[in-house]
Amino acid sequence: MRSRLAAVAAALFVLAVIAAVGATSPPNEAGPLSVESAGVATGLRDRISVGSRASEWVRELTERAGPRLAGSPGDKAAVAVALETMKTLGFAKVHAERVVVPVWVRGSESGEITAPVSQKLALAALGESVATPEGGIEAEVIGVKSFEELQARKADVARKIVFFDVPTQRTKDGSGYGKSVVYRSEGPSRAARLGAVAVLVRSIGTDVNRLPHTGALQYEADAPKIPAAALSIPDADLLAFVLARGKPVRVRMALACGMRPDAESANVVGEIPGREAPDEIVVLGAHLDSWDLGRGAIDDGAGCGIVLEALRQIASLPTRPRRTIRVVLFANEENGLAGGKAYAAAHAAELGKHVAALESDSGTGRPLGFSWNAGPSAEPVIRAIGDLLEPLGAGELQGDGGGGADIGPLRTAGVPLFSVRQDASRYFDYHHTANDTFDKIDAEALDRNVAAVAAFAWVAASLPHELERIPPEKRTPARSR
Amino acid sequence: MRSRLAAVAAALFVLAVIAAVGATSPPNEAGPLSVESAGVATGLRDRISVGSRASEWVRELTERAGPRLAGSPGDKAAVAVALETMKTLGFAKVHAERVVVPVWVRGSESGEITAPVSQKLALAALGESVATPEGGIEAEVIGVKSFEELQARKADVARKIVFFDVPTQRTKDGSGYGKSVVYRSEGPSRAARLGAVAVLVRSIGTDVNRLPHTGALQYEADAPKIPAAALSIPDADLLAFVLARGKPVRVRMALACGMRPDAESANVVGEIPGREAPDEIVVLGAHLDSWDLGRGAIDDGAGCGIVLEALRQIASLPTRPRRTIRVVLFANEENGLAGGKAYAAAHAAELGKHVAALESDSGTGRPLGFSWNAGPSAEPVIRAIGDLLEPLGAGELQGDGGGGADIGPLRTAGVPLFSVRQDASRYFDYHHTANDTFDKIDAEALDRNVAAVAAFAWVAASLPHELERIPPEKRTPARSR
Repeated sequence: MRSRLAAVAAALFVLAVIAAVGATSPPNEAGPLSVESAGVATGLRDRISVGSRASEWVRELTERAGPRLAGSPGDKAAVAVALETMKTLGFAKVHAERVVVPVWVRGSESGEITAPVSQKLALAALGESVATPEGGIEAEVIGVKSFEELQARKADVARKIVFFDVPTQRTKDGSGYGKSVVYRSEGPSRAARLGAVAVLVRSIGTDVNRLPHTGALQYEADAPKIPAAALSIPDADLLAFVLARGKPVRVRMALACGMRPDAESANVVGEIPGREAPDEIVVLGAHLDSWDLGRGAIDDGAGCGIVLEALRQIASLPTRPRRTIRVVLFANEENGLAGGKAYAAAHAAELGKHVAALESDSGTGRPLGFSWNAGPSAEPVIRAIGDLLEPLGAGELQGDGGGGADIGPLRTAGVPLFSVRQDASRYFDYHHTANDTFDKIDAEALDRNVAAVAAFAWVAASLPHELERIPPEKRTPARSR
Repeated sequence: MRSRLAAVAAALFVLAVIAAVGATSPPNEAGPLSVESAGVATGLRDRISVGSRASEWVRELTERAGPRLAGSPGDKAAVAVALETMKTLGFAKVHAERVVVPVWVRGSESGEITAPVSQKLALAALGESVATPEGGIEAEVIGVKSFEELQARKADVARKIVFFDVPTQRTKDGSGYGKSVVYRSEGPSRAARLGAVAVLVRSIGTDVNRLPHTGALQYEADAPKIPAAALSIPDADLLAFVLARGKPVRVRMALACGMRPDAESANVVGEIPGREAPDEIVVLGAHLDSWDLGRGAIDDGAGCGIVLEALRQIASLPTRPRRTIRVVLFANEENGLAGGKAYAAAHAAELGKHVAALESDSGTGRPLGFSWNAGPSAEPVIRAIGDLLEPLGAGELQGDGGGGADIGPLRTAGVPLFSVRQDASRYFDYHHTANDTFDKIDAEALDRNVAAVAAFAWVAASLPHELERIPPEKRTPARSR
């Protein structure tokens, strides 16, 4: 990495010398990037990484809108805040694009161990869970540590509450979440098929707080819909301990949650029009909605702050980028992806002109590099951007598919997809909990993410030729989480 | 410290050599301790510090009784668990001593900022708070950072909710808590005298979780009783931010808490009778009750586990101590001190024979040394105990007054009071919150505390002469917290 960095630095030094003597620089190439483009991106990187207003936008959103699950009053407030912010920042064509969203409401919820001890449990219904019958469900609990164990004990599941007791490993790349989240998403239907009456999952998280992690479940069509909730990690520990005593353990749980009629929300869009190819578009996305328990600071106020600030920084440059850079703050990422789908549908005619899309939805951890999904000839460009961001520690590339849930629907049109890989070590301490509040924002790390996104966007919007699109065989639909 | 340690080690080595050749050791002195006594205490230290059952007793109590505020069902369960545990451990004279306790119940509680933004607040009524009128109180908020600021703005307090916004500093010795807790205890009456309708305090804690810290307030007789609650720290941050915008801020809060008729609880007592002076007593105390939000693991399940295990370890020695060592698990420390007062009253006739009392009520942090309050001639003994515990890092002495809330009433009788000073760096992350659960227990640190308490108790119960009692001028009543 050092030698590539030295090469970029040397090229920039030459550029600086040329600029200093007032010479007009010819379209030299600093690797796959033009000297001009690399120079501007480097300037963005260096200016932004020492201070930006990204955390200010997160504070604004979390303070004025707060929790903003699709279709809620907070969601409506968030759309208004986002429109106002984009207008204040001087973005062009600021507007809301109507999205019809599913509406799930939590209502009251409670749980307790009733035998052989009496203990209240801190739990939270999983998103899209059905309610329990009024008065709740009380049943014996069967604890399992894997789907394999569930299958092995399937004769013992009927009329029970299944407790999926699978810890989430803390990892820098967030892969621990990927391994355990299946118990939240698939667990309820798998247990229901075996006759379970309800499901409890150990929160998909890495903290030690009495604050359960919610998140969407996915009911399968062939299984009865049974109520499901997450236990806070200390409560999962307690239930596991009590089960380990070997006596029958009974839990009562009462959830008043459920689906309500669809409502209107919106994707909020603003842009900087390209100076030469305004119909060619680089999308910077994040999602505006959040779960209801916290205030959506890290998920995904952070992403909103990052992309808003990246565009503001680019807008403040003396020269507009060649292509249009568009910020899209998507509706309903958390429980339906209606915003991402609506954007792809509404813009179907111009997706062929979408030259790149990046989504920022990984919280407030430091940037480590990029993930990407594009045609193979795009690699040298991505590598050059990575080299440029190496001084921020953001130079590592992963070609195994970038993107994000909301820009996933652009994949079928072949739009090159990107995301900044961030340090996820602490992300799952707070993710989807009441603890997702502004104080968790690391302003300095956010600045570095803005630098990475702005440098990327500038380069993608300035390349003389378009990035090679995703090959047809890699345009499979995204899996939501 | 090293040279004293070396001296003790050398003395013990001599003892070991004497023991090895089968000689009967004469009553030699290893400083102020007999060689025999120092040797036994050292053996206890070394055996216990590498593993004890203390965390097992904490688990038992937190799992079977859980939250146990005085007079609650959990409190009743805790008395039963403590009696059973002491009997199982073979302690003598295991019994419950009736204590009439005040009963405060929490009930439902909620709060929200209603203007200029709409945000739910995570709050918890302070212990002993009165309820709000049904439907809650809604009023403008005035935020202050000190009692001085409250006074300076006293003309602006009437009909408002006063928000005491004072952060608690993280300190190893717990002194940060001492500085900020006055806003919880005294704030409500101070605000009420100026016409406030309710009080909110920034939680007296050092964490970043949406889990408010409860704790007792102290209504003064000359002030109206107004409802008071603690905001979680992220919610205090939010309210401070919103206030800083400069617009009038309104909060609605509804608390259903209040006092109920007194109830019966109990101090649970068990002992090892002394072999030579059974009427002379060393008390090892902790409190059995806890706040209602958590499961009372660090406050004070930890202390219960420590003193139970210390006595169990001493009971397992081949020789009983000269004097009686008595464990007392006190009722109602958190909101009334009825247990401590009842013990002092019930045992008034034998307090002259109480030669020392130690209370363990500082959580799960590592032991650092001892605080003590006794006559000056006791110092060399305490120092010798400290030297003996130096290898555990528990050798630092503070002569500024040891003890604990429950043994405070013994001070007026001059009983020498002790406590193990513990590392409090993390204690106020969890103290008085829902997060006070078993997973927070550091079993290894608990073992070291047991070692310190057992060594202390053995020595105090073995000294040929009694420790010098607290001089009359230092027998002032304890201040509760």
